[in-house]
Amino acid sequence: MEVTRLLHITLLITLLLYFCQAYNYETYFYKQKKLKYTGYLTSEQALADYVELITYLKSAIDGAKNSTVVAFGGSYGGMLAAWFRMKYPHVVQGAIASSAPILQFTDITPCEDFGKLVTADFSKESPECANVIRNSWAAIDSVTRNEAGLAWLTQAWSLCKPLKTPQDITSLKNYLVNVWTNLAMVDYPYPANFLAPLPAYPIKVVCSHLTEANNDPKPLLEEVFQGLTVYFNYTGDSKCLDINQQADSRLDDYGWDFQACTEMVMPFCYNGVEDFFEPAPWDFKSFAQTCYQTWGVYPRPFMAVHMYGGKDISAASNIVFTNGLLDPWSTGGVLWNVSETVVSLIIPEGAHHLDLRGSNPDDPPSVIQARMIEKTHIQNWIDEYSARYDE
Amino acid sequence: MEVTRLLHITLLITLLLYFCQAYNYETYFYKQKKLKYTGYLTSEQALADYVELITYLKSAIDGAKNSTVVAFGGSYGGMLAAWFRMKYPHVVQGAIASSAPILQFTDITPCEDFGKLVTADFSKESPECANVIRNSWAAIDSVTRNEAGLAWLTQAWSLCKPLKTPQDITSLKNYLVNVWTNLAMVDYPYPANFLAPLPAYPIKVVCSHLTEANNDPKPLLEEVFQGLTVYFNYTGDSKCLDINQQADSRLDDYGWDFQACTEMVMPFCYNGVEDFFEPAPWDFKSFAQTCYQTWGVYPRPFMAVHMYGGKDISAASNIVFTNGLLDPWSTGGVLWNVSETVVSLIIPEGAHHLDLRGSNPDDPPSVIQARMIEKTHIQNWIDEYSARYDE
Repeated sequence: MEVTRLLHITLLITLLLYFCQAYNYETYFYKQKKLKYTGYLTSEQALADYVELITYLKSAIDGAKNSTVVAFGGSYGGMLAAWFRMKYPHVVQGAIASSAPILQFTDITPCEDFGKLVTADFSKESPECANVIRNSWAAIDSVTRNEAGLAWLTQAWSLCKPLKTPQDITSLKNYLVNVWTNLAMVDYPYPANFLAPLPAYPIKVVCSHLTEANNDPKPLLEEVFQGLTVYFNYTGDSKCLDINQQADSRLDDYGWDFQACTEMVMPFCYNGVEDFFEPAPWDFKSFAQTCYQTWGVYPRPFMAVHMYGGKDISAASNIVFTNGLLDPWSTGGVLWNVSETVVSLIIPEGAHHLDLRGSNPDDPPSVIQARMIEKTHIQNWIDEYSARYDE
Repeated sequence: MEVTRLLHITLLITLLLYFCQAYNYETYFYKQKKLKYTGYLTSEQALADYVELITYLKSAIDGAKNSTVVAFGGSYGGMLAAWFRMKYPHVVQGAIASSAPILQFTDITPCEDFGKLVTADFSKESPECANVIRNSWAAIDSVTRNEAGLAWLTQAWSLCKPLKTPQDITSLKNYLVNVWTNLAMVDYPYPANFLAPLPAYPIKVVCSHLTEANNDPKPLLEEVFQGLTVYFNYTGDSKCLDINQQADSRLDDYGWDFQACTEMVMPFCYNGVEDFFEPAPWDFKSFAQTCYQTWGVYPRPFMAVHMYGGKDISAASNIVFTNGLLDPWSTGGVLWNVSETVVSLIIPEGAHHLDLRGSNPDDPPSVIQARMIEKTHIQNWIDEYSARYDE
C-alpha cells in the first residue's frame, strides 16, 4: 500500500502566477484591438482556463490521470490559487496561496492599512527615514513652484525627461509612491530581482541615505535621490531616472489596471500622519470616472466579494495562506486559521511571497518553517487523493 | 441565547426552480431577437444572478442581513441548488436538491439507464403493459404503410392534424416517447397537475388499458390510445390529440433545448429490449449537427463535469440530495451519502421531486420521513449560521 503510494506518479502542476503573468497576452490583444477581448480578462475566465488546461494535461500526460494537482500562486496568483481550490475542488486538491490579498476589498480591509504598513517598514529602520519621505511631498511642491526649481530637480534627480507641467509633478509623485510601495513588497533578506534589481534588505540601504528630515527642501530631496538610486540604478546601468519607465515597459500593468477597473477594485487611501504619503482619500467616484475614461467600463466594487465570499471562506478546504508581515499586501491577507485544512502561516520577516522564492542561505527561520508546513499539507493532500485510487 | 436564536429572523429564500422556470424570459428574447442573448443562458449565469439577487434581498429586507439562506430546487432547479451551494457557500448555507440529475452526463451514467427505469415503472404494473408499448412502434409502422392506414390512425387516435408524411410519424413517435417518459416522472400517489392534469398513480390507470400485447396492430393501437387518453385528456376538455402541443405551448422547452446543446449534454439511448422504446443509440455526432443547425452552436459534452465535478463532490458541504426511485431522473442522481453534511435520501415510492410538493394525505411514509430529515438539516444550517451572529 505504502509502496503503491510511493510509486504513484504524482503530478504537481505548478501554477506560479505572480502578480503580473496571468494576463500578458490578453493585454497585448486588447491594446492592439481596442478592447475586443477584454471580456475574457476576468478571474473567472482565468480559473475556467486552468480547468481546461489541467483536465487536458491529466488526459494527455501518461500516468497523470489520477495525479493530485496542487495550485501555487503568489499575490494575484495567490488569490487565483485560493479561489481555484474554492471553486474547483474537483480539479485541484489543494492550494498554496502566498501573499494573496483576497480581503483587500471594499468594506473588509480599511483603505489606510496598506499605506500604514509600507510606512512601518521604513520607520522601523529609522523614524528619520520615514520622515524624510513624509516631508518630501511638500519639498517637491516648494522646489517646483518656479522654472528654476523645475530645472534644479530635473538635474538633481537626473530625470530623463525635464519636469515642465503640473502633470509631470503628479507623475513624479506617483512614481515615488510606487517606489516606496515596491520596496516594502520586495524587502527580501538577500539581493533579488523582482520588480527591480535590488540589494539585500533594500529598505535598510535606502534608509541609510535618508537621515535628516530637515526643513530645507533641496538637501532633503538630494537625500531622497540617494535613496531612489538604490531602487532605479542598483546595477549602475541607468543613465537617467525615467519616471514613466514602469508603466511603459510592463504590458501587464495595463492588464491589472483593467481588472482593478472591473472586479478587482481595491480601495487605498493615505492620510500622511499614520503613513508617510501625501493625504489622498479613497474616492470611488473619481476612480470610477477614470475607469470609464480609460477602458469604457465602470468598476463593480463588490464583485470579488460576491463571487468569492470575502471573509466568509469557512466552507473552503485545503488551502495554506502565507503572509509576510513586511509585505503591505498582508493587510488584505487571511491571517487566521479558518479551519483544520484552511490555515494561515505568518512569516514575520517575510516580504511579498518570500516563501515561493527559491531557498537561500539568508532565509529567515520563519520562512524555512513555513515551507516545511506547506510541504506537510501538500503531502496530506496527495495522500488523501491517492488513497482513492489505491486498491 | 436560545431565545435570541428563536427571535432571529431567518430568511429562507425559496428557490423553487422547477425544470422549466429559470429561463422563460431569455427564451422569449432569443427567439425574438435571433440568439442575441443566448450568451446569458448558462447555469453559471443563473447562479451568478442568484448571488446578485440574494445579496440585494439581504441588504434590502429589514432584519435579513444575517439571515440563513437555503436553496431549494427540483430537477434542473435541483442541480442549480446543489451547484449554488458548491460554488457560492458564502451566499447560501445549504441546499435541498431534489431529483437533481447532476450525474446524467457523458461517461458517468450509462445512456440506457434512463429508458430502463421508465420501462420498469410500467412493467411493474404489468409486463403486458410494457409489452403493448414495446410493440406499438412496429404497429404504427405497419398500420401507416398506406394512405388508408394513415387515415385510420388519424381517426382512431382523434388526431388534431391528419398524419401524412414520414415526418408526421416521427413526430407521433416522439410524442409517445415524451408521454411515457413524463408519466414515469409524474407517477404521483394522488391526482396532480405537473406536466399534465393526471389521476393518482397515472401509470396504473394507463396500464389498466394496456392489457393485450397481441400481434394485431389495430386493436393494440386502440388500446394505446385508451392509455394516451389518460394523459392528454384527463379533464375531458380536449377535442382532439395534438401531438405538437407540448413543444408549442411551452417556451421553456426551447430554453432547455439550447442548454442541452451547449453545456447540459445528457446522453440518452434505447435498445428496445431492456426498455420498451424503439432502439436508438446515442449519436453525439448527429446530436451535435442538429444543435448547430438549430442554434448555431456545438455542444461541449464535458462542460458540466468540468465545471461542477461530476461524481467528485467530496469537497462540498450542506447539501441534501433526494431521489424518488420511480423517477427516471434518479438514474443520474446522487444516490449515496457523500459525507456527513452531503447526504442522499432515497424515496422508493417517489416520482420526480415528490418531496418538494405540498404534503398530501396520500403521501407515502418515505417522503414524509425525507421531509423530516430535510428539516433537521435545514435547522442545523440555520443554527450553525446564526451562531456566528450570537454574542
